[in-house]
This record gives sequence, structure tokens and C-alpha cells, in this order.
Amino acid sequence: MSSFFDLLEKSFLNYRGSTQSLYDLTYNMRLFKHNSDSFVKGTMDFNIIATDGNARRAIISTARGIINTPSFMPVGTLGTVKAMSQDELRDIGAEIILGNTYHLYLRPGLDVISQLGGLHGFMNWDRPILTDSGGFQVFSLSAFRKITPDGVQFKSPIDGSLHFIGPAEAMHIQGILGSDIAMTFDECIPYPATHDYAEKSVILTTEWAKKCREFQNPGQALFGIIQGGMYKDLRKKSTEEILEIGFDGYAVGGVSVGEPKEEMHEIIYFNGPLLPFEKPRYLMGIGDFVDMLNAVEAGFDMFDCIMPTSNARHGTLFTSFGRVSIKKTEFKYDKGPLDPECGCYTCRNYSRGYLRHLFQSREILAMRLNTMHNLYFYQDFFRKMRQAIEEGRFKAFKDHWYPVYDRTPVTEE
Amino acid sequence: MSSFFDLLEKSFLNYRGSTQSLYDLTYNMRLFKHNSDSFVKGTMDFNIIATDGNARRAIISTARGIINTPSFMPVGTLGTVKAMSQDELRDIGAEIILGNTYHLYLRPGLDVISQLGGLHGFMNWDRPILTDSGGFQVFSLSAFRKITPDGVQFKSPIDGSLHFIGPAEAMHIQGILGSDIAMTFDECIPYPATHDYAEKSVILTTEWAKKCREFQNPGQALFGIIQGGMYKDLRKKSTEEILEIGFDGYAVGGVSVGEPKEEMHEIIYFNGPLLPFEKPRYLMGIGDFVDMLNAVEAGFDMFDCIMPTSNARHGTLFTSFGRVSIKKTEFKYDKGPLDPECGCYTCRNYSRGYLRHLFQSREILAMRLNTMHNLYFYQDFFRKMRQAIEEGRFKAFKDHWYPVYDRTPVTEE
Repeated sequence: MSSFFDLLEKSFLNYRGSTQSLYDLTYNMRLFKHNSDSFVKGTMDFNIIATDGNARRAIISTARGIINTPSFMPVGTLGTVKAMSQDELRDIGAEIILGNTYHLYLRPGLDVISQLGGLHGFMNWDRPILTDSGGFQVFSLSAFRKITPDGVQFKSPIDGSLHFIGPAEAMHIQGILGSDIAMTFDECIPYPATHDYAEKSVILTTEWAKKCREFQNPGQALFGIIQGGMYKDLRKKSTEEILEIGFDGYAVGGVSVGEPKEEMHEIIYFNGPLLPFEKPRYLMGIGDFVDMLNAVEAGFDMFDCIMPTSNARHGTLFTSFGRVSIKKTEFKYDKGPLDPECGCYTCRNYSRGYLRHLFQSREILAMRLNTMHNLYFYQDFFRKMRQAIEEGRFKAFKDHWYPVYDRTPVTEE
Repeated sequence: MSSFFDLLEKSFLNYRGSTQSLYDLTYNMRLFKHNSDSFVKGTMDFNIIATDGNARRAIISTARGIINTPSFMPVGTLGTVKAMSQDELRDIGAEIILGNTYHLYLRPGLDVISQLGGLHGFMNWDRPILTDSGGFQVFSLSAFRKITPDGVQFKSPIDGSLHFIGPAEAMHIQGILGSDIAMTFDECIPYPATHDYAEKSVILTTEWAKKCREFQNPGQALFGIIQGGMYKDLRKKSTEEILEIGFDGYAVGGVSVGEPKEEMHEIIYFNGPLLPFEKPRYLMGIGDFVDMLNAVEAGFDMFDCIMPTSNARHGTLFTSFGRVSIKKTEFKYDKGPLDPECGCYTCRNYSRGYLRHLFQSREILAMRLNTMHNLYFYQDFFRKMRQAIEEGRFKAFKDHWYPVYDRTPVTEE
């Protein structure tokens, strides 16, 4: 049983060094006062503070701290968010990160992680972690795979060794990783897929979700994943079946698998409102600003994507005026900060000219400063978005940012 | 004219976040009180605080801050000490770094650095910088080179373009870089070399040194470099000629070019005491602990080497109990810090098991944490050495560390 004071202390520690709005802090303190007596380690609480249309401003409370939503989770595939230290993640205000079950299971392996204190102890990160189930990676990354009703047999791309992961194994692995939020083991189908294939996959995903629920680890929240491809009838069927089982939160999977943006957005707007109002809603693997703005409008609360980190390492930076390639010749002599409106360590300390030089020279500091900026930009974007929802002006927020990051060709009429 | 208070403030800023000994701080304050009135921007002051045999404990004062000697300078080849941020360099207590003239001249080029505020402004580093002259690199790295009495023509290894650097050019380039300490342009000969070749090279190096002295930039200290290969008569000749010209400090070059350790140590012990007592003595390119211990014993004050940074990126770490390869299987489940006696960020926060995993996975954080540790270890080693000299126990210090890092095979008698 965590005491109110423990939680309050954790909350203050979370805010030290971050630049989150005073709004967040005030809400958190009120919330803790409210929840402290009923708050048990391992359970998860979800409190909606404000709504603006279908958009929601909420707080997820876990034993390891709180998560202000809408929230973006940086991806820490192998027990590290690439190029960042754990202190830097705290400093930019990341309240939760994502760990990849499939990758961690293969390297360093469960024996190492269990002996070194679970994923939190292993990587020295004391805030919440969400782990995916490994389902997506088993299907997309393994060299060889054989699906059975019990799960998937596959070969490790590292050493060719044979492995088997199904719902029971996925829950077992996530239990050892010790994440705060686990995900059900699902089949994520490619695009395009026939209605027949998509339907079979929904049936399998439901069966696996039931098994996962059965094997849920004590003290670990579990989110159910909804599939169904681009077929609305199947999305509805999958949603009903997953809701029927009952989870601590609900995730929409199987989007951003190659489909056109229009189809993705249709599924987002269709599937979002089908999810229960009083539980967190997580749109998996989405990090494009336009997609996230639509998704928040459709009522989603949580996002994760490698976009900010991966783009950073390839020299693409996100700014208040859109995407920027740091390689551009015009930056060669540029003394100014990357984004004059950004308060990150990179923008406060280094010039565009220096960043360009570091990137052209393939220096490690280039990867670091770029990643730092992109992740800060994402966190800051979500801070501003949360405030906009609180203040009932999400529409204006969306209208401001949508054209900055919309890549759809403009058709002149 | 810097005021006493400016200097004092700079001194305090330098110490914020570092773990340097109170001894250093006290000495600095006394020194500033003493020197503040006569201290002019661009000059360099050298004050010997304590001696222990030939070993010296001194302070170099520059307009950008002070350098406690004996001092180790991390190498920032391309305007970044690989894998480190400038704040991290300050935090580990680095008081001066080295920049490579040859590399910076080729990339990003002088136009960029001059427009972005010199090397200090470009990389946002406000403490002292020493630049080498590019001589060593022109000879060791260029694809094609032609030596004339005026300098060296060479091809850029980046794009094959033709360039010319001689003493006048080297001073011009270092003036634009704006380093606090510049080096003369010398010829560093390979090992082995004939007496005849070595002698010709000493003559050329002296001619070039004269020219450099003539072109010395106002407000920039200039150190003369002594050559002579492994020949004591030529070392003596070169030393006399370079001293005759007169510089702000003296450097011994041309060691660690492939010769056996015994020969190197003989030259170190021979050449060190030939240098004037009242000026800084810099042994170029040396970073092996055994070599540095001998060199400090011989009266050298300054060192630079890529050893800590380069080894870090290849998984070799320096500890209180010797060299460690982080790849070792025995670290797989090891919860302990890399070095229990180390106070660096890495050792305070992460386990051997985690460091091993990061390195095996080629994660950027591995390069960062390893580099941070090695550079901290070097800085800490020098802090302890300075204190040992102050307290008249350098011999005991050397006797403790020599066997920890001596790789000479032990001959049983």
C-alpha cells in the first residue's frame, strides 16, 4: 500500500528538472489527495480531468508514478532509448517509456534481466514502463515462423535459434520484465489483407487475448489489443470481443502497416469511439503528428513510435515550423538555434551550423543532440496539447499544427 | 583586463559540479588574489605550487580559466570530444581540451569556424583549448605530401583536394580557431629513423619554429616543440635551439611513434629535465598511465591522448584495478558497478551487466557511458596525483599505480 506521501514525493521527483505545466502538477496533487487511500501497488487508475469533444485530458496512476495523457512514449527497444541516458529522459519530462518484449527476450535474455532487477532495475529507470507483447515483432522480424493455435514458433535473427512465443509465454516474459503495463499477444496482419484472412486473425487474436487475461501477472496492468485490418465490421467484432474479456485499457493495433493515410484515419475515427470512455485508449506504433492529432480528436490517449529517435539519427528534426533536414547547405554558417521556440538542451546550447557539422562528421554527439531535441519536441507538443484540451481549445491547437506537419499534396480547385 | 572578481567567478563556475579537491580550489583562490592585477587577456601565467623531486604541481592561468597541472587534456578532434557533451566534460572536471588543427581545417573548414565564433563559440566550450599545429597529422594522415622549406603540400583524405600548410599557415589557422594555447608547426619523424634524417628534421623544425614565433597571434600562448627522434645529441640540440627562440611553454614531440617503451622512457627522462623549470612542459600524444607516471616524475606537466575515448568506444575501460574488457562473459549477470571505487556517472548508476549488454548491442549509450567513465577516471587519476605531489608522496603514488598498469612481462630471476 503506497502512502499519499510516497506518491506525492514521487510526483515531485518526477517534476524536478522537467518543464511540465503547473496545470499538470496542480491536477496531480489534487488527484493524489483523492486517490491515495484506495491506491494499491500494481493496480492502475485512470482519471479524466477534462474533455474537449472526444479529446480527453487524463491521468494514469501507477505504483511507479503518474502519466499525464495524452502521452507520447519514447521507445527503448533494448533497455535504452537510443542515444539518451535515463536522466536525460527524466529531464525532458518522459513519464513512461516502451520496452520491446521480443528484442529483450532475445537479447540480453530473461535470465540476465531477471537477475538484474527486472527491466526497471536493469536499465535504472524508476518510472512506468509499458511493454509490447512481442506479437508484432514475431511476425515482422523473424526469419522463419509457424503459427499454431497456441502461438508462434520462430527463429532468432541473431543466432538462428528456435523459439516459441504464444499468449502464455508473452505474459510470462512480460512478468519477468516487470513492466507496469503489459499488452496482450496478438496477430498483426499486413496490408493489404483479404476479409477472410483478417477475420481469421481477429478470431485468433481474441482467443489469445483470453489466454493472456487468464495469465495476467499480479500487480501488472494489462491492455487488450483490437485488430481487424481495414474492415470496419471486423474492427467492431474485435472490439466487442476484447471488451467482453475486459482489460485495464484498450489498444488499437494493425494501423500504419502500409495503408493510405485516408484509410488509417477512417479506422482511427471509427475505432476510437467504440472503446470505453472510462479506460485508457492506446493507438499503437503511431508517431506522425497529423495521425496523432486525428487520434486525440477521436479520443485516444497514448502513443508510441520510433519516429522521433530514428529520424533524429538520420538528421531529420521536428520543429515549430515543420520537418528540417540538418544536412542542408544553408545551415553551414547558421549561428541560430535549430528552433528558436524550443527550450531543449540542444536548442539552448548549440547552433545549426554546429549541428550540421556534427551530423556531416557522423559524430556521436550529433545523434545525441538530435535525439534530445526530437524527444523534447514531442514531449513539449503533448504538454501544449494537454493544456489546450484543459482549456477547451483543442480544435485551435489542431488547426495550428495540422498544416505544419500535413504532407498530403494540396489539390488546387 | 580581467578583474579579480571576473576570474574568481570563472573559477567558481569551473568548480560547480566537478569533484576537484578542495586543495585545488584553495590554491586557485590564493593564486587569483596574487595575480589578478597583472593578469591580461591572452597572456598565460604559470605558477608552481609544490614540487616533489622533479614532479611539479602547478597552475596555468589563462583568460578563459585555470588549468591545474599535471593535467590530462581530452582530445576533441572535430570540435567534439567523441560521445561527450560539453556539459559532461565540465562535470567531470576537464579544465582544458585539445582540438586538432588539421581535422578542423579540412572539416568544417575555417570559413565556418570563423563565422561561428571561433572554436570556442562553434562548440560552445568556454574553458581553455590547446590546438596542435597539424604537423603530425599532415605527415601521418595525408594521402600525398611534398615537403618544402616553407611547409607541406598535401591532399585532403576527404575529397582529394590540394592544400598547403607551413609554419605561417599553421599560425594563421590556429589564430582563426582562437585556441588559448597554440603549437609550433614541426616535422614528426617516424621510428626508426637514421641519425642523418633525424638531424635534418631537427634543423627544419627549428626553422619552422622561428617562423611560428614570428607569426604568433596576439593574445594566444605559443608552445615550442622539440624533436630529435631517439638520439640524445639531437634532443639536446633541438632543445637548445627551441629554448633559444623562447616560447610560453615547451613540448616534447616525436615519442610514442612505434619505439620500444624503454627507449621512450629514456627520452622522457633525458628530455624532461632539459626544459626550463619555470615554464609548462607538455609531453605530446602520451596517455598510457605507466608513461605518464614516468613523465611526471621527469617533470612534465601536460598530456593528451585519444586512449581514454578510443578505448571506451572499443569496450576497454580503465579502473582502480587495471584494464577491463566490458565484453567479458563473467559480467553478464554482474549487478555491481564497473569500478566500486569510482564516483563517475556510469559507476554510480549502471551495472556491469547493463554496460556489457549495451556494448554487445552496439548501443550509443554504451559509447557514452564508457567514455564518461574513462575520462572521469583520467581526471580523477590526475586529481589524486596532484594531491600526492602537494603532499610530497608522489613516489608512493607512482609505486601504487605503476604495477596496476604496467604491461611489461615480469621476468622471474
